[in-house]
Amino acid sequence: MQLALAEAAKGGSATWKNPQVGAVIVKDGQLLATGYHHQYGQAHAERDAISKLSNEQLAGATIYVTLEPCFHYGKQPPCSQLLIDSHFARVVVATIDPHQVVGGKGIAQLKAAGIDVEVGLLKDQAEALNRHYFYFYRQQRPWITAKQALSLDGQVAAAPGQATAITNQAARRLVHQERADYHAIVVGAGTVLVDDPRLLCETPQLFPPVRVILDRAGRLLDYQDRFVFTDASAPTWLVTTNRAATKVDWPAHVTVKLLQNGDWPELLDYFKEAELQSLYVEGGPAVLTELFQAVPVNQLITYLDPQIIGDQGLAGAQFPAGTAFTHRTVTQLGDDIRIDERNDE
Amino acid sequence: MQLALAEAAKGGSATWKNPQVGAVIVKDGQLLATGYHHQYGQAHAERDAISKLSNEQLAGATIYVTLEPCFHYGKQPPCSQLLIDSHFARVVVATIDPHQVVGGKGIAQLKAAGIDVEVGLLKDQAEALNRHYFYFYRQQRPWITAKQALSLDGQVAAAPGQATAITNQAARRLVHQERADYHAIVVGAGTVLVDDPRLLCETPQLFPPVRVILDRAGRLLDYQDRFVFTDASAPTWLVTTNRAATKVDWPAHVTVKLLQNGDWPELLDYFKEAELQSLYVEGGPAVLTELFQAVPVNQLITYLDPQIIGDQGLAGAQFPAGTAFTHRTVTQLGDDIRIDERNDE
Repeated sequence: MQLALAEAAKGGSATWKNPQVGAVIVKDGQLLATGYHHQYGQAHAERDAISKLSNEQLAGATIYVTLEPCFHYGKQPPCSQLLIDSHFARVVVATIDPHQVVGGKGIAQLKAAGIDVEVGLLKDQAEALNRHYFYFYRQQRPWITAKQALSLDGQVAAAPGQATAITNQAARRLVHQERADYHAIVVGAGTVLVDDPRLLCETPQLFPPVRVILDRAGRLLDYQDRFVFTDASAPTWLVTTNRAATKVDWPAHVTVKLLQNGDWPELLDYFKEAELQSLYVEGGPAVLTELFQAVPVNQLITYLDPQIIGDQGLAGAQFPAGTAFTHRTVTQLGDDIRIDERNDE
Repeated sequence: MQLALAEAAKGGSATWKNPQVGAVIVKDGQLLATGYHHQYGQAHAERDAISKLSNEQLAGATIYVTLEPCFHYGKQPPCSQLLIDSHFARVVVATIDPHQVVGGKGIAQLKAAGIDVEVGLLKDQAEALNRHYFYFYRQQRPWITAKQALSLDGQVAAAPGQATAITNQAARRLVHQERADYHAIVVGAGTVLVDDPRLLCETPQLFPPVRVILDRAGRLLDYQDRFVFTDASAPTWLVTTNRAATKVDWPAHVTVKLLQNGDWPELLDYFKEAELQSLYVEGGPAVLTELFQAVPVNQLITYLDPQIIGDQGLAGAQFPAGTAFTHRTVTQLGDDIRIDERNDE
């Protein structure tokens, strides 16, 4: 199963809305084949491994798979039937699929076909590999990570309205890397207005995270030259309550979503419906302050640079009393510090 | 000279207002003796080393000493004369004594006596060993270190008026250790009122740092039960503009200093006159904010614990725009972080 997990991780962010899954086939103590889900829309891990073997090799073999084989017709025919047709003697599954259309049914079908099924081997590792996927389908809401970059005196910019790079290059690079782990990057209109950020990942992604711009008032309608509106290398969703935004002739990569009031509960309903399993909320401080007041936040990543900006700076987010996390990891990045705090699911 | 520096460091904080000094005597390529200044009021390093040898051994020898030999009668007779009387052939000095009553005169006397004198070997290390001493006599003001303990959201307490231990045990222990490097610990009346701190070092000191309490208004006259007023294991200086404080029958370890207005320029004059070479200003936030606005601060040590206190907390000090330091060291202490920032002298 360790090997299957390593296989699974090869899929990386290319699996997008699908979980990363790996499979290993053994028979008579010999490793016959490995496989993994390469990317969204392509063959599942079981099919990838099975495709490398003959019917004769498969008959009576054992397959280790990091997630319950699927039961439904999605982009691919169901794997549970494939395993039965391949005449596996034994199926070892790390964990049940939390997706409502699978949810144990794959396992049940295998057992009904007389296959020896074991569930739970390295379950925790398997779930950690797809943390956002499991959270989304179990809790029916996206995993929310808030990210902030602070100076030692808790400022996020040299002055309100002034674009400021707080952190060092190592920290900025890590931010660009970790964006790829999320389905959406969320910022407010103020950030787009002042910083004009790219909101892209370090390396081009097959399925780049959606750039969600919260602009209830429609302030950005006068700023259509901003990078997120002109660059088509990732989708941009403009979330607003201003009906005028729907009348603009936006480029194809820009989608306007009109909401009633645009508060966080409504936003989360919208994100859930859009199957955004994970959000990386990058601020600014007004967005983060409102987020923490409105809904539970799963994770807070703080990049701290020990510079002092002084009392003319723009202060960081305010957190409600009682904000706390169960896990914490502190890492040094040169002079900068990354503090990763998260809650159990 | 490396050996002499190692000897010097043995004196540690016991040398108090005196610098840490070490001496090594060699002759014909052989190490004859080492010595160091053990504690304030006792023999200087040169005398300590010389006392271990006969006149015959000393004649024609070379002495390495980490600081210019003293020229004046202080607590001890002058070392320059002792070196001449010992008939040293050569004296190697790491650095000139910045103290106005020495200041090169020791060297001049040795040279006038026909001794071969070399100055400057490992100068930087020798000065770093007595950083506060050199700063005080060169700049004619105490070295000021500000220390703060912050939560991730920049708070110093759960609420105004509520004693809160922000940092972890490792951080608190380090604070208690580094206090011993200073001549005075400075806090405001609010800190004494709310936290009732001990303001002692981790281990008992021969010359413990003075506990300086800034209490311009005399708020603490009604709180004479506070630890710093009842515990005699270190001196307590109550600095105030309230004349009533001088009428109180304080214990012997408590000294009242009446100032005109008690602002930082006046405080620094007072500290200079009292020969406090170094201050460890522990706050609270009002004291630190005023300090940074009023005078240059040499060093800022921040202990950061990544907890979130929330918007009902007491915010940390405000720093004026442009506050910056030339050197920075970031250290992890478990989950806590120590950020040491200082300026060149």
